[in-house]
Order: sequence, then C-alpha cells, then structure tokens
Amino acid sequence: MSIATVRRYRILVAYKGTAYGGWQVQPNADTIESELLKAAAAIGIREAKTAGAGRTDAGVHAQAQSAVLSGISSIPGDRLAFAINTKLPDDIRVISSCDAPEDFHPRYSATGKIYTYTVYIGEHASPFYSEYAWHLRYNPDFEKMREAADILTGTHDFRAYMASGSSVKNTVRRVDSIEITRQGPLIIFRYCGNGFLYNMVRIMTGTIVQTGLGLIELDQVRKSLDSLDRRDAGITAPAQGLCLTEVLYPDSR
Amino acid sequence: MSIATVRRYRILVAYKGTAYGGWQVQPNADTIESELLKAAAAIGIREAKTAGAGRTDAGVHAQAQSAVLSGISSIPGDRLAFAINTKLPDDIRVISSCDAPEDFHPRYSATGKIYTYTVYIGEHASPFYSEYAWHLRYNPDFEKMREAADILTGTHDFRAYMASGSSVKNTVRRVDSIEITRQGPLIIFRYCGNGFLYNMVRIMTGTIVQTGLGLIELDQVRKSLDSLDRRDAGITAPAQGLCLTEVLYPDSR
Repeated sequence: MSIATVRRYRILVAYKGTAYGGWQVQPNADTIESELLKAAAAIGIREAKTAGAGRTDAGVHAQAQSAVLSGISSIPGDRLAFAINTKLPDDIRVISSCDAPEDFHPRYSATGKIYTYTVYIGEHASPFYSEYAWHLRYNPDFEKMREAADILTGTHDFRAYMASGSSVKNTVRRVDSIEITRQGPLIIFRYCGNGFLYNMVRIMTGTIVQTGLGLIELDQVRKSLDSLDRRDAGITAPAQGLCLTEVLYPDSR
Repeated sequence: MSIATVRRYRILVAYKGTAYGGWQVQPNADTIESELLKAAAAIGIREAKTAGAGRTDAGVHAQAQSAVLSGISSIPGDRLAFAINTKLPDDIRVISSCDAPEDFHPRYSATGKIYTYTVYIGEHASPFYSEYAWHLRYNPDFEKMREAADILTGTHDFRAYMASGSSVKNTVRRVDSIEITRQGPLIIFRYCGNGFLYNMVRIMTGTIVQTGLGLIELDQVRKSLDSLDRRDAGITAPAQGLCLTEVLYPDSR
C-alpha cells in the first residue's frame, strides 16, 4: 500500500450527459464533477478537487473530457481509473488515468479541441438516437452545408456564434476544419479548432443545417462573420447532439 | 375526416427497452404494449388491443418489432404512425404503419426472426454502451467463437438453450445463420432463425463467448445439443445487449 500524499491525477472521462446538469459543479443539479468528487471521496481520497479542459452543458456528452483530479490519496496514478470506476454511475467512466506532469493544466496546456455533432435523419425520430442526436425529418443539401462550413472555417471573430449573455471579450477563434460525413441515417459534423465560444459549435451546426435546408443563404453566413450579430447566424442546435470528442495537447499527451 | 370504424393496423415498433418491463402487458411494470395502448387511447382509438410477433424481456430492445394494433378508430393506416408518435415517450416509436391485410397475424404469419446481440470490449465499460451491450474486459478468440457458432447453426433440439422453468414442448428450432462481426470495440452477433426459445439467443451468446474465452470446450457445446441439459450450455448473456432486429414474413411484408 502506498502512503497517502497529495496527488494530481491526469484523467480522461467519458460520459453520457443526459442525466446531468453539465460538467461543472453547481448548486441545484448533479453534475459530472460532483459525481467524480463523490466517487473520489468513496475511495478514500480526501480534499478532492477537479479541473476540466472545458465545461460541457446539460445533456452534452464527452468521449474524452480531459481533467485533473487532485487530493490526498494513496492510489497510484495508473490504478485510479479502476478504483474510481467502481463507485461511479454507469453513465460516467474514467477511461484512463496517470500521475499528472507537474506543469500540466487540462485547460491552459490544451492547444485545441475536437467536437462532434450528430444529426439523425428520418421520417420518425429514433428511440436509439433521441439522447444522442438532433432529429431532422428532411435531408439538408450536402453541397450547401459543405459551402457554409467552408465559410466558417478559418480564423474569424465568431461573436455572432456565441450565446447572448456570454461575457468573453476576445471572440476570435481559429476553426481548423469542419468535416461533414454521412453514415446511414446519421450526419456527423466534426469540428476541430483552437477553442470554441459558449454554444459556438451548436450555433455553427444550426447555421450549417439551416443553410442546407434552404432557410439561410450563403451570403448571410458570410455576413454574420462581419456583422458579428447573433441574429445573422442560425439557430442553436439542441444539446443532445453534441459530444466533446478530444482535447488536444502539444505533445498529444 | 374518416369515419370511426374497427381498424387493424400493421405496425413496426422501435424501442429502447431499458426503462420497461418488456414487451407484454403485465401488472406491476410499464411495458411497451401498455405505452402503445395508452398512446392509442390518447389519440382517440377506443377498445385498443395489441398483438406482437413475440415478447421481448425487460431491458431488451427492438429495431422493428412487428405488431397489430386494433381498435375503433378514424385514423387512416398510413397516418397512424405520425399520430401515435406524438403521444409516445421518446424511447418508443412506431416507425411504419398501414392497414393490416385481413389474414395477417404478426406471430403466426411470421416465418423467422433476426436478433442481434452486442458485446463491448474494453478495459473500462463505456457510458455509451452500458444500456446496449454486454461489457467484457477480455477479447474472446474469434476462431473459437466461429466454431461454436457453427456447431449451433442448423436444426437442433435446443432444450439446453432454454431458460429453465419454460413450459414449451417442442424445443426443436432451425438456426439459419449466426454471423459474428467486429466493429471497433464492438462484437455483433446476428442470429437468423425460424424461431427462438425463451432466452435462447442470450444463452447461445453466453455459450459462444465463454467458448471464445476458453471457459467452455467445443466438445461441450456439441454435447449440449445431445444431452439437452441446460447445465451443459453457457451462461445467459445479459438482457441489455439483445435487440429484436427484424421479423420475417413469406412475402417480406
């Protein structure tokens, strides 16, 4: 048995966000962080704290949220995942753990993020995708969506693609790529960028889809990047289609 | 508006079984049938009744359960799906509807069924598959599984592959094919046959997987088809991995 000491674990967390009020601890809802802290206490970690690479909203999922869990613990870094998973609910899993390098910060060390957004196309909604996708009855035009995505790719002031009420000052972000692929009844949007404003991926998806359905002209998408007016961008696609897929670090650690 | 008259609808129903006590109406649990009957009443269908191609257990899913919904109704066959879906919970959807041919019976007209069973392989369970797959930590040997599946394919007395306590007399069934495919972290078992005994697909899956893990010898699988002894077959794989994929009819209707 190792001696209890202050430890910092680097962890990757997969979760189905449906039942939670998002990543961050908050007063009136169960959150991913609060479940992690409860499970940490249950395996004997004292004064546990968590820090994530970014927040996810209520209903949003993660395949690999990157975080640090710290506290007074005797559990070796590579055993933490196995230990904490015995106390976590089925919809949250720590999929890897190690001792965090001293200079590692899940948010400030990150150089980028990958999000995916899933749309389900069908005459009727699917019971299997209702928690994981945005149901659309009509097939958006793929070429139109591709053109809208190309307009949004690059370094832009994305102020029009930020939830109103957000207080961030610097709203310039770099979107490296937006891939759109069709897989059976699903359309998968894959966004890679150096960072995303609050609701930015959901508003980009809403805008691209509305363009594909002929509800927004490509000229308006172009305009939105100049006007910086939220009203020139499209609707905010619903939370359940969004998934934080990967957080990128310089050494891919 | 059509006139209310006795109507028989042929329907295909997709459902996520997690929250339900199975297909069939029962006293102390919500079931798929009871939800369908509630929704039918909510859209004005009187004296509604349902009959399915087969029962599914608690936690078992269906991509296309085949059923007849009958009652006094003014809704045309092709509109029923749209109408009833407005009253069904998100985890149940009628994916198609039409007027049932007079001689159609979902169970007696059926000539076969296709079930799929999903296994998730990973060091840690996945939050996204916990309701849809059996989590295994170790990779079963594919060749061994293939050989076990070949032994079970064909017309046999499957008494050893029936839940004890079941009262069916004729336990001979024809298994036309067992396909096993790997898709990333998933192993998908696809069973096609003229009918399956109670728990038969889950016991076959448990047996094939245990053979692949070296816990059961191929000779024992062969023996189980002669001894007809439940103890010679493997464990019953958990419900959540099972999905009724398709019910087959002579004219593929």
